[in-house]
Amino acid sequence: MVDVAVIGVGMMKWGELWDKSLRAVFVEAALNAIDDAGVDRIDSMYVGCMSSGLFAGQEHLGALMADYLGVCPIPATRVESACASGGIAFRQGLIEVASGMSEIVLVGGVEKMTDVDGGGATYALSTAADQEYEDYNGVTFPGLYAMMARAHMEKYGTTRKQLSEVSVKNHDNGSKNPNAQYRMKLTVDKVAGAVMVADPLTILDCSPITDGAAAVILCPLETAKKISKKPLVRVSGSGQATDTIALHQRKDRTWLAAAESAAEKAHKMAGVKPSDIDLAEVHDCFTIAEICAIEALGFAEKGKGGSVSENGETAIGGRIPINTSGGLKSKGHPVGATGVAQICEITEQLRGESGERQVKDAKRGLAQNMGGTCASSVVHILEVA
Amino acid sequence: MVDVAVIGVGMMKWGELWDKSLRAVFVEAALNAIDDAGVDRIDSMYVGCMSSGLFAGQEHLGALMADYLGVCPIPATRVESACASGGIAFRQGLIEVASGMSEIVLVGGVEKMTDVDGGGATYALSTAADQEYEDYNGVTFPGLYAMMARAHMEKYGTTRKQLSEVSVKNHDNGSKNPNAQYRMKLTVDKVAGAVMVADPLTILDCSPITDGAAAVILCPLETAKKISKKPLVRVSGSGQATDTIALHQRKDRTWLAAAESAAEKAHKMAGVKPSDIDLAEVHDCFTIAEICAIEALGFAEKGKGGSVSENGETAIGGRIPINTSGGLKSKGHPVGATGVAQICEITEQLRGESGERQVKDAKRGLAQNMGGTCASSVVHILEVA
Repeated sequence: MVDVAVIGVGMMKWGELWDKSLRAVFVEAALNAIDDAGVDRIDSMYVGCMSSGLFAGQEHLGALMADYLGVCPIPATRVESACASGGIAFRQGLIEVASGMSEIVLVGGVEKMTDVDGGGATYALSTAADQEYEDYNGVTFPGLYAMMARAHMEKYGTTRKQLSEVSVKNHDNGSKNPNAQYRMKLTVDKVAGAVMVADPLTILDCSPITDGAAAVILCPLETAKKISKKPLVRVSGSGQATDTIALHQRKDRTWLAAAESAAEKAHKMAGVKPSDIDLAEVHDCFTIAEICAIEALGFAEKGKGGSVSENGETAIGGRIPINTSGGLKSKGHPVGATGVAQICEITEQLRGESGERQVKDAKRGLAQNMGGTCASSVVHILEVA
Repeated sequence: MVDVAVIGVGMMKWGELWDKSLRAVFVEAALNAIDDAGVDRIDSMYVGCMSSGLFAGQEHLGALMADYLGVCPIPATRVESACASGGIAFRQGLIEVASGMSEIVLVGGVEKMTDVDGGGATYALSTAADQEYEDYNGVTFPGLYAMMARAHMEKYGTTRKQLSEVSVKNHDNGSKNPNAQYRMKLTVDKVAGAVMVADPLTILDCSPITDGAAAVILCPLETAKKISKKPLVRVSGSGQATDTIALHQRKDRTWLAAAESAAEKAHKMAGVKPSDIDLAEVHDCFTIAEICAIEALGFAEKGKGGSVSENGETAIGGRIPINTSGGLKSKGHPVGATGVAQICEITEQLRGESGERQVKDAKRGLAQNMGGTCASSVVHILEVA
């Protein structure tokens, strides 16, 4: 397989973008990525999006976005894997470049979630769960993650304060990210005392409903050496895995087996171990998700994700900075865009472009994206080339 | 890139499958493909599906289908490109095997369309068009293809009888296909005299609403030589392209530029020309679509698709047999499954397994799948290895 580099990243300010359409949001991020890469063409593109059908009455996003980006007749493919759509779209772009089928590939992720009301958004998101056994019985994602949190608390003694620490840290990071949706700082008391959504999770344990897009440009590393004016960032590892879609069918509600499996594959491909990673973006759709993710990824021992978060090891300047972008919690979570935005953050960190939230001497970063209650997960490792 | 073979195909009886769920339909076809290939594992899988969110309240089909097929934790990715979802999922599987990332890959396509009412199905399908400029103004797909038909009639003198001949021929073929949804034979008068849907298209010019799935197994040709007990079928060409999503923005409403572009790429990759192809499955969502497709693919001169259809050149035994399976018209059109089923038909024909509808001495076949009014299209060429 051909070695692949990320040569361009494109972000935009995320939030409630009522004055921008689905296609406008995507095109803005895509053009930013093309500008950042300095390329004058793309050969193929992918669009990660979870549910534009339910959120916006529009499927067929590959063709739509190629059209509005002005790049027809290139191939354009939409990839969906619930909230892992962006990360898995990135993997498809990686495979296409690695195969030699195409040279310069754009991968964008997008979701426009605020054009439906709260019930509509909750319904659309619920389609990531098992429709016949979970949705049918009325459980929503805050409810599912609350069950995971309660199980983690009972099994390992994880505390309400530890959940809060994740949110406080991610908002601290997000306050330094001009593209983040919610840049206010929080306190542990404020998180714990906020409106309860599904006990023990308050609204400040939950990532928000967001409109936004993100995009990156991939090409062979050898091409990047010739055309890129930025520090080179290579994709050294990629892993993707699945687990039972329904939470109740798993042996252990506290363990993200798909994230563990995806990470093992990515580490093996990159020839590194978790202690070799300098920073990571992980899928903190809820505070408990970050605690479970850092355990599955090998950044904390099993059951210790809460205490590792509480003692500052995951803060910028800590042992393993997690979600320097602000994560899904503060930056926002336009579900199809999230996995691509994680790649943008890691790339910028490895280039040393992250300003106030820069991790010192960052040479290798990891991005972990997941769908549903981690029925699908994808992990990428990026390195300074 | 690694040379890739199709070593297994899995079809099932298509129709109104009210006693089978979305997942059950997919798993049935996937198990048939695994049995046909004789493999004891798969390393990765793709699910082509257009709009399970709107048709069934279920996204995240990669994880769901991997779970119910019993193959977790392998990677599983859902691909969407409207009615080209299946063909483009096949291309993703092809690229993954060609890259060396995985060895044995399953590609399935599925759609369960009859669990919503007719209005719900029409709405879900309309999301393949431009939501802001086409759907918003009330046009549906029969309306869009009727405009294409009317333009073709005015520009080239294509007749009502020529449209009917496509439907009659495809039902003749489908009458010999035990998996087809509608196996009755038709006459030109019956087609022309059926209930009008959008002038000049009657209900017998339109492909039906269908539940169904199809699946194939891909692996490197070298692996196939070792493990396959069936005649070897190699994927020699692949091309994918896009066009403006909205029909009114095209220069020529009668020309499928994305199909032409995809076919050119596939022919170039395979090193062949249209006259080297022995049979083809093309995307006859409406009778006019087959007429336009055979022109764009180079099987008929521009404007001559109608007369070529009328004079029997596209029948089994004719110059270039088209839609030996019965096509979307007779076999049915579960939109996400269609592109994969086309590959099943071509593979079986090349193996000489097509019984009553076998094309004599078939050595090379082409499959053309498209989304919307051909805003996306994908073409594959398969050959006896």
